[in-house]
Parts: sequence; C-alpha cells; structure tokens
Amino acid sequence: LAEKKVLIVYAHQSAGSFSAAAKEAAVEVLKSKDCSVKVSDLYAMKFKATATAEDITGEVKNSEHFRYAEETKLAWDEGRLSADITEEQRKLQEADLVIFQFPMYWFTVPAILKGWFDRVLTLGFAFTKEKRYSNGIFKVNKTKALLSFTTGSQETMFSPTGINGDMNVTLWPLQNGILHYCGFQVLAPQIFWAPADAAPEGRSAMLAAWNTRLQGLLDEKPLFYAPMDYFDCENSFQLKPESVEKCVKEFGPTAGTHCGKPLPPNNQMKAGV
Amino acid sequence: LAEKKVLIVYAHQSAGSFSAAAKEAAVEVLKSKDCSVKVSDLYAMKFKATATAEDITGEVKNSEHFRYAEETKLAWDEGRLSADITEEQRKLQEADLVIFQFPMYWFTVPAILKGWFDRVLTLGFAFTKEKRYSNGIFKVNKTKALLSFTTGSQETMFSPTGINGDMNVTLWPLQNGILHYCGFQVLAPQIFWAPADAAPEGRSAMLAAWNTRLQGLLDEKPLFYAPMDYFDCENSFQLKPESVEKCVKEFGPTAGTHCGKPLPPNNQMKAGV
Repeated sequence: LAEKKVLIVYAHQSAGSFSAAAKEAAVEVLKSKDCSVKVSDLYAMKFKATATAEDITGEVKNSEHFRYAEETKLAWDEGRLSADITEEQRKLQEADLVIFQFPMYWFTVPAILKGWFDRVLTLGFAFTKEKRYSNGIFKVNKTKALLSFTTGSQETMFSPTGINGDMNVTLWPLQNGILHYCGFQVLAPQIFWAPADAAPEGRSAMLAAWNTRLQGLLDEKPLFYAPMDYFDCENSFQLKPESVEKCVKEFGPTAGTHCGKPLPPNNQMKAGV
Repeated sequence: LAEKKVLIVYAHQSAGSFSAAAKEAAVEVLKSKDCSVKVSDLYAMKFKATATAEDITGEVKNSEHFRYAEETKLAWDEGRLSADITEEQRKLQEADLVIFQFPMYWFTVPAILKGWFDRVLTLGFAFTKEKRYSNGIFKVNKTKALLSFTTGSQETMFSPTGINGDMNVTLWPLQNGILHYCGFQVLAPQIFWAPADAAPEGRSAMLAAWNTRLQGLLDEKPLFYAPMDYFDCENSFQLKPESVEKCVKEFGPTAGTHCGKPLPPNNQMKAGV
C-alpha cells in the first residue's frame, strides 16, 4: 500500500491552545500509521489572507476592472500565481486527506483560513463551471477533506431548537459550498464543543476521542451529497422533477437542498444519515 | 429629525466593478436623503484581515497561551486596541445603518471582510455572554445592518431544490450568527444574482431596483428572530418547551432554529415571512 499523504491546514495563533493539541494529535497518530504529514501553520507563515492583484506575478489583464477569479485563472494557466499560493496548491494536489484545524470564529472559519480558501482554490486549479460538485476536480484522486474545529458555544445551543440554530445549517455553506464544490469527499466534521469551558479532564476526553477516531480516519465513509446527474445541469441546476422524489426516498433531503422537507438530523455531521 | 448616519463597509478590489456601482448608488441616494455617509473601503485601506497579537498595543496578558477574544477584550477595556480597529469601532458606534457591500466568495464574505468581523466586533465592544441576540449591544441604538452582495451563481441554483442549496441556509450563519448576534436589526439582504453573466441592461435594471429600495431603506422592518426570553438562557439556550409551539404558531420556525419543521420560504430573505 502506498504511503498516504496528509495536509493539515492549521489556523491558531498559539502553541498552547486546544487547537494546537488537536493538530499535534493528528500529526502523531497519522505519522504512526505511516502517513507523510505536512502542516500549513497559517499564522506562523503569516499567510496573506486578502485576494489582491499582488497574487499575480507580472501584468494583470484588466487593471481598470480587476476581476479576481478571471485574473487568477489566467495567472494559474500561465504559471504566474504568487509563490505562496503555488506552494499550497502543490501540497493540496499531493494530499490524500486534508484536515482543516481551527477555532470557529463567527460561525465559520477565521479570516486567515478564509483567505486560504479564497486564494488557493483558484478557478481552473480547484474548479471550473464543468468540473464541480460530484464532477469536481478533487474527485479524480478521491481526496478527502474534513473540518476539525472548536466552538465557543455548548452543543445544545447549536441544535434545531437552540439559539445558534442547527449546526447542520451552519456547516452547509462550508462543507457543500467549498469542500464538496471542489469535489472533495467530505468526512464528518470533528467538533470540539466549547473546550475552553471544560475542565481539564473534559478536554483530555475530547482529545482521546479524536485520537481514537484518527486511527480509522482514512477508512471512513464520506458524507452524502446528491450527484450532479440528479440536477438539470444544462439550465437551472435544480433537481430534475423525477429526482426530487428519488432524493427524498433514497437518501432524504440535505441541509441545503432540502426540497421543502424537514431537515434530516445530523445530515452534515454523520455519514449515512 | 436628526441626520441619519450610514456606514458602508465595502470589499471589492476594483472601482470598475458592479459592487463599486452598488456602493456608489448607496452613497448617492443616502446623501440625497440627508444622511451622512462614511465608506470603509477595505482593499483601499489595505485592511488587516488576520486576528493577531499585533491588534493589541503593549503587552499581552498571556503570550504562552494567547487567546484572541480574551486578550482583545482586555485591550478594549484599557483602550489598547490597534488604531485601525478603534477607528472602525468608532464609525460603527455612530452608525444608524451599516451596509456590507461585497461579492460572495465561497458562500460567504471575502476574507478581508471576514477579518473586519473578526477584528472589529471585539468581545466587550460588540457582545458579551449576557448581551447578545435580542439583548445584543447594538439593540440599544436600534442600529440596522444589511448584507448587499453579488453572486456568481444564478438564483435557481440557490433554491431548496438547487445544487447550491437554499440561500436562506447560507445566509443564516451570517445574519443570525454575526449581525443578529450583536443585536443589529437585520434588514433583508440585497442580492444581485450573477451580474457578471447579465447583459448591460440586466445590470442596469438591478442597479435601478437597488436605487428604488434605497429610497425607503431606513424605514424598512427588520427580519424576525425569536427573542431571548423564548429560550432557556440559564442553561441550554434551547427554546423552552412552551416556546416551541409558540414559535411555530406565531411566526414559524427560522432557517436555523427550525424545530425539525420544514424551512419557511425566504425566512432570511424577506421581512414578515
């Protein structure tokens, strides 16, 4: 069996944090399983978060009306993306599994990690109008991706009757809109509920559970998303009339493509539900 | 009637963009209605997106285990936040209405605007554990806030049967998790569907509709979120058993706090639905 390659994109400022411990656990366990592991430590790298013309070496095509997606697509075609982006793209292309380790800020990733998505997942490199979702670019290598994050809120706050709302709703734009969009196989997220409010033994238990999960992580089944051919991809990108019923019967609605039905519990949190 | 103050937080790289035109329309119409208008042009300001210890002037409390929220709370208490954050907080505090104008990147705001949320909405300044949601800090001044953005996708793709999923799901973490969380009255979003794919007359029509809306914007009713006293705020922050039925009967479930019911159409997109 070929050695598996893992990329951990890590976004916390402090080596003393719970996020750092979770990242270290992943490095250790996966190395012990003979994986090669690379870590992109975004704060340590002072990773540039903002999408600007500086991401392109040389002339831009239209500086009067600079369009980031089109300009970076062209630069990618011509090998003129900035070195930091090219380096991250190389790591991503080699990876069999990508783990994003971060503290949730404002119901999503911190800006530095959002900047990684905005800048590294270039049009052409990570997706095209033809190659996305179940036809996505990372489908070819069956690259897996997983969000591993801490929250500030308790789990009950993120329930369908909780004040923060259903965590599955909060996860949908990240997991469907970024990871599945690029064709990654999305593994169930690893959520560390409010470790800062937990006692030391609570935090240890969370890390122990993560350690256990890491042992079998590479063999996990991904979450389910309705395949492209269920949608009218010539036109509206809506489920074909015959697919709506199929969807609801075969695997149920998803958190986003819910077809007006009640959201299935844990749709974005567990495989096979 | 006192002059109304408007802050536009604007995140596009190019003065030739549709986003720039939408921002300019807001400036012009609101000035013509005797509002004073300030624009934070994030790319022009080279606004720092990443949350780091440099956001604090002088010593941090615990550099070994740097915790951004706690350290910036302390710095805010002591007037030691960096000048760029303090300046944005001053503008925000004075505003009666805040418009966020941006192109949607990866189902949410671009990193530079995420950085504005991460850095400007400091613990203590914008929220505390006691003061959030319907008890939120910006409730006191009845500050209104609104997302105005362009998409790359057509509207049909963002429906409950569309491949991107229901736009109301995508809006929930932004509108509930950031704006309502801080106590802003959330006005219905202004969504410009795929202007880059539209003919010039289509783009003109979108801008004309925005112009019309801007005339009455300050008098619009905000979106509805279940009030804090419907939740068990001592403990789980879940809807009290008696509130679930009340919620469903009185105003229906919301996109996030959906109580296992079908998501109401346009819950995050129109007031009074």
